[in-house]
Amino acid sequence: MHSIGPMIQRLGYDIQFEIPAPTAIVALLNVHPSRVGDLHAPDELRVEPAAQLESYIDSFGNRCTRFVAQPGTLRLSNSTLIYDSGLADPVNPYARELPVQELPHDALRYLYNSRYCEVDRFATIALELFGGVPRGWSRVQAVCDWVHSRIRFGYEYARPTKTALDVYTESFGVCRDFQHLAVTLCRALHIPARYATGYLGDIGVPASPLPMDFSAWFEAYLEDRWWTFDARHNQPRIGRVLMATGRDASDVAMTTSFGIANLKQFTVVAEQVPQGQASGA
Amino acid sequence: MHSIGPMIQRLGYDIQFEIPAPTAIVALLNVHPSRVGDLHAPDELRVEPAAQLESYIDSFGNRCTRFVAQPGTLRLSNSTLIYDSGLADPVNPYARELPVQELPHDALRYLYNSRYCEVDRFATIALELFGGVPRGWSRVQAVCDWVHSRIRFGYEYARPTKTALDVYTESFGVCRDFQHLAVTLCRALHIPARYATGYLGDIGVPASPLPMDFSAWFEAYLEDRWWTFDARHNQPRIGRVLMATGRDASDVAMTTSFGIANLKQFTVVAEQVPQGQASGA
Amino acid sequence: MHSIGPMIQRLGYDIQFEIPAPTAIVALLNVHPSRVGDLHAPDELRVEPAAQLESYIDSFGNRCTRFVAQPGTLRLSNSTLIYDSGLADPVNPYARELPVQELPHDALRYLYNSRYCEVDRFATIALELFGGVPRGWSRVQAVCDWVHSRIRFGYEYARPTKTALDVYTESFGVCRDFQHLAVTLCRALHIPARYATGYLGDIGVPASPLPMDFSAWFEAYLEDRWWTFDARHNQPRIGRVLMATGRDASDVAMTTSFGIANLKQFTVVAEQVPQGQASGA
Amino acid sequence: MHSIGPMIQRLGYDIQFEIPAPTAIVALLNVHPSRVGDLHAPDELRVEPAAQLESYIDSFGNRCTRFVAQPGTLRLSNSTLIYDSGLADPVNPYARELPVQELPHDALRYLYNSRYCEVDRFATIALELFGGVPRGWSRVQAVCDWVHSRIRFGYEYARPTKTALDVYTESFGVCRDFQHLAVTLCRALHIPARYATGYLGDIGVPASPLPMDFSAWFEAYLEDRWWTFDARHNQPRIGRVLMATGRDASDVAMTTSFGIANLKQFTVVAEQVPQGQASGA
Repeated sequence: MHSIGPMIQRLGYDIQFEIPAPTAIVALLNVHPSRVGDLHAPDELRVEPAAQLESYIDSFGNRCTRFVAQPGTLRLSNSTLIYDSGLADPVNPYARELPVQELPHDALRYLYNSRYCEVDRFATIALELFGGVPRGWSRVQAVCDWVHSRIRFGYEYARPTKTALDVYTESFGVCRDFQHLAVTLCRALHIPARYATGYLGDIGVPASPLPMDFSAWFEAYLEDRWWTFDARHNQPRIGRVLMATGRDASDVAMTTSFGIANLKQFTVVAEQVPQGQASGA
Repeated sequence: MHSIGPMIQRLGYDIQFEIPAPTAIVALLNVHPSRVGDLHAPDELRVEPAAQLESYIDSFGNRCTRFVAQPGTLRLSNSTLIYDSGLADPVNPYARELPVQELPHDALRYLYNSRYCEVDRFATIALELFGGVPRGWSRVQAVCDWVHSRIRFGYEYARPTKTALDVYTESFGVCRDFQHLAVTLCRALHIPARYATGYLGDIGVPASPLPMDFSAWFEAYLEDRWWTFDARHNQPRIGRVLMATGRDASDVAMTTSFGIANLKQFTVVAEQVPQGQASGA
Repeated sequence: MHSIGPMIQRLGYDIQFEIPAPTAIVALLNVHPSRVGDLHAPDELRVEPAAQLESYIDSFGNRCTRFVAQPGTLRLSNSTLIYDSGLADPVNPYARELPVQELPHDALRYLYNSRYCEVDRFATIALELFGGVPRGWSRVQAVCDWVHSRIRFGYEYARPTKTALDVYTESFGVCRDFQHLAVTLCRALHIPARYATGYLGDIGVPASPLPMDFSAWFEAYLEDRWWTFDARHNQPRIGRVLMATGRDASDVAMTTSFGIANLKQFTVVAEQVPQGQASGA
Repeated sequence: MHSIGPMIQRLGYDIQFEIPAPTAIVALLNVHPSRVGDLHAPDELRVEPAAQLESYIDSFGNRCTRFVAQPGTLRLSNSTLIYDSGLADPVNPYARELPVQELPHDALRYLYNSRYCEVDRFATIALELFGGVPRGWSRVQAVCDWVHSRIRFGYEYARPTKTALDVYTESFGVCRDFQHLAVTLCRALHIPARYATGYLGDIGVPASPLPMDFSAWFEAYLEDRWWTFDARHNQPRIGRVLMATGRDASDVAMTTSFGIANLKQFTVVAEQVPQGQASGA
C-alpha cells in the first residue's frame, strides 16, 4: 500500500527510570525540526519530577533536551498530534549516485567511520558483495535486500556494544543492528548514509505482535537529497515521524545518562487517529 | 623549558601519492582557523598537477579542501610562516572539572563513543584506574601519566583499524594510539576530550631521532575552555600549531581518499626560523 | 558449611532439540572418567529416537558420545546416582605456584590462548591487577574475588561469541563468562587454568531462584594437582560432579551440532537423595 | 614442476634472543616425529649457554623441548640433513569430504574454534562464499584460491593478536594469516583443518627475494587422511619438512617464552644439497 490519504497521528511515550543519584541526562525525544511544521499539538517533553530543562540543536541538526534527574523515579512522557500525508516512503529507482566530488560538503561526514560502523573493515567485503550491482538507488536497495534477508531479528540479540561487524558475523540482531550494517556497507561503497530514529506505527501494514517501540531506519544520499531506507522492514512505509539523525546509534540515543538510570517502564504510541477525533491531544 | 620568547616558525610539507585512477580527496592540511591570525605568509595547499580546489569548514570547525586527483603522481605541498608566542602549553592545576550539566552544549559530543574510542567498553576500567584521583586537571594529568608510562612507542605497531581497546590490550602504539586511549579514558570519566593534529617541531627539546611527522595530541575541556594534553610526550611543549580537532583520527585524517592513493613520499617541516631570516616563505 | 557427610546425589537431564535435517552431534553428557568409580547406577545417555552411538575419550580426557540425529524431535536424557563425600571443595592456602619450568608437560597447554581466552591481550592487565598479590593459592583466590565482585550476573548477557575481553569490558555475564575471565587472568599470570563443567546442585546453600542448569567452574594447577575454583559463586561448594574439562567452553560444549538443532526443552537435576531412598535410579 | 627426484635437504636455523631474566621456554624446533625416519643426520636443538633440556610429545603429537633460559644472549641453533622424495604435495581431486559422523574421533577437534580461528563467526560467511562449490577436494581448493587472491602479503601487517576475522576484514597479512583464514573457513564448512609449520625452501620455484623463514601451511582431512594445502603459495611445492601441527599458531609457536625474550637474530636454512656433498652436516 503506497498511500492512505492525509491523516493525523497520535504520538507519545511514557518512559520511567529509577535514578539512584543525581544524573545529567540528554534526551532526543522530540520530533525532528524538519517535521515541526506538521505538528497539530505541542510536542513537549514532560519531565517528572520537574527539572530545569535546556534545549539546543546538536551538530547533526537534532533537537536535544538536557536536565539533571534527581534520585527516585524519573518519568519522561509526551503526547502530541502530527499531520501526515499518508504517503509511503518515496521510491525513485532513477536517483543516481553522486561521485564523492559532487557531494555537498556536509554529506561527507556520513562516509566516515563511526562507533558502530567500521567502514574501514568492510572496504573489500562491500565491493565483493555489491561491486557488480548498478550504482545509485538499485545499489542501496541491494544492500537493504541483502541485510534484510541475511540477518535474523530477535530482541535477545541486542547489546549496546554490538557493531556492524558483529551483526555481520553473528547474523542476528534488532532494528538498530540491521541499519548499522546497511549504513556501513553504503559508506564502504562511498554512498553517504546516516542512521535515523523516530516513530513508526503499524499503519497500512498488519499489526506487529511486538510491543510498540521507537524505530530505527536509515537515510542515503542520492541525486540531490536524503532518501529513507529501512533494512529491517525493507518496504516503503506510511507514517514515519523522524526524531533524529546521526552517524549511528551512538549519536542519537533517545536518552544518554551520565550516571546510572535503570529503565523501569517503556511504552510508545504511534497510531492513526480516527477521523473526527483529532481535536484534543 | 616553559618559554623561549616570541618567534617565527617555518611550517610545510611535501606529500606525494601515486594515483591509479581519478580519486576524490579531502585534505585537512591547513592551519586551524583559530591560528590564521598568526600567519606571516600565505598558508596555501599546493596541488600538482593543478586541480579545482574547494574549501569549506567541517562540522568540527576545521578547514578542509576537496579536489579530484588525476592518475599519476599527486603532490601536496606547502610552506608558510607563523608567529608563535614561544610559550609552552599552559598548565593550570586548578582548572576544575565541570559536572556534565554545566558543560556547554557543543562539548557534549566529545563525551560519546567514536570509531577508535569505545567509551562504553571502558566505563568500569576508567573508574577502577582513576576513580580515586581528584577530579579536574589532576585527573586528566593522571590519565596522561598512566598512558604515557604504560604504552610503548613503535612505528611497527601502527595500523589503521587500531582502537583504544586494542592499544590498551596490546600496550604498544604510535602517537595517535596514545591519544586515542587517553581520550577514551577521559570520556569514560565524563570529561570531554577531543583528538587534535598539527605541527610539533623539536623546539625547546632535544631533537628527535625520528623523521619529522605531523603530530597528534588531545584537548580536554576543563573549567571554561579546551586545554592541550599530550599522552605521547607528556610534557608541556612549545610551538604546537593546531591543524584540526575531531572526535578521533577518523575525523581529522590529513588526507582521506575515496579510492586508491599510494603514499610515495612524505616530509614535514616545523622549525624555528633564526631571527632575521623570517622575511621570505 | 564445609561438610554434610557422605550422601548420594541424583543426577539427570532431559534435553530436547528440534532437528530439521540429519545432523552429526557430539555430546559431553556423561560423568567425567575420574568420577566413574563413584557411580551407584549406570550413567547412560539415552538418545531418542534411538541412534547408533559411538563413545570415545577426547584429547582432554573427557568421555564423548557421537551420533547422527534424525529430523524430528531429539531427546537426550539420563538419570543416575552418584556417591558424594559431602565435603566442600578443598581449600589449601599453602598450595604454592610452580614456576613454569616445574609444571608437568600436560599442564602447559592450559597456559596458552584459546578461543574465548585471549591470554595475549591480558598480559599487562593481569600484572597490573594481581602482580602485587603473593603467588600461589592467594593469587588465584584474588583473581576469583575480583571477577566475582566486578562482573554482574544476568542471563540476558549470554552470547556464544563472548570472550574474556568482552566480559572484562562489558562487566556482565553468565556462569561461563565469569570462569573465562578468571581462567584468562590466571594463564596471563602463568598459572595453568582450565575450564570445567558439571552438575552443581543447591546442596548446603540456599536454593537458587534460577532453574537448575549445568554449571561451569574452573581448575587451577598449584603445587602438584588441579584445584577447583569458581569465580561465579566464589565459595567452596559441596556436591560438584565433574563432567568435562578443556581449555574453554569451546572444548566442552554439552552438545556440539554440525547442523541446525533448535533447543526446545532443557531440564537438569542434581540433588541430594534423602537417606534410605537411594536404591532405585 | 611436480618432481625433481630424490634429494637431500640441509635444514637449520640460528635464532638468538636477549634474555633479561630467567625465563622458561618451550621450543617446537625439531622435525615432526612423522619425518624422523627420513633424517640423515641428528636433528638436535643446540641451546647456548647450555641448559637442561626436557623433551616431550604434546597433545597434538609434536616434539617439544623445554628449558630455562638464563639472562644474557640465548642462542638456539641446529643443522641437519633430511631425505626428501622430491615429489610435490600430492593432489587428489577425487578425495571426498567425509560427513562429520564418519570422521575419526581425533579429527573432530580440528572443527572447533581456536584462538585465531573464530569458526563461529564465519558460519554464514563460509556458506555464502563456498556453499555452491562441490564438496571435497575442490571445496578446500576453492578456499585456498579465494584466500590466495584476496589477501595481500606484507610483513608490515603481522601482529601477534591478528585473528582470521582481522585478516578477512583487513585483507592483508603474512603467511600465518593466510592459513588462519583458510583453516577457519574449512572448519566453518565442517572440514577438519589444522595449522602446520615447517621448513619450505625455494626448491623447484624461483628464489624468493625475502629472507628465508620458517613457513606455515595447513592440512585438511579428506577421504582418509590429512592433505597439505597452502593458501599463501597456492601451488604444490617440493620439499616441505613438517615440524608441528596444531589448531592454530597459538599451539605451535616456534618458541613460547614465559617471560621476556627479545629476538636479536633469526636465520633459517632449507636448501637442496648438491649431489655428492651430503656426507657432512
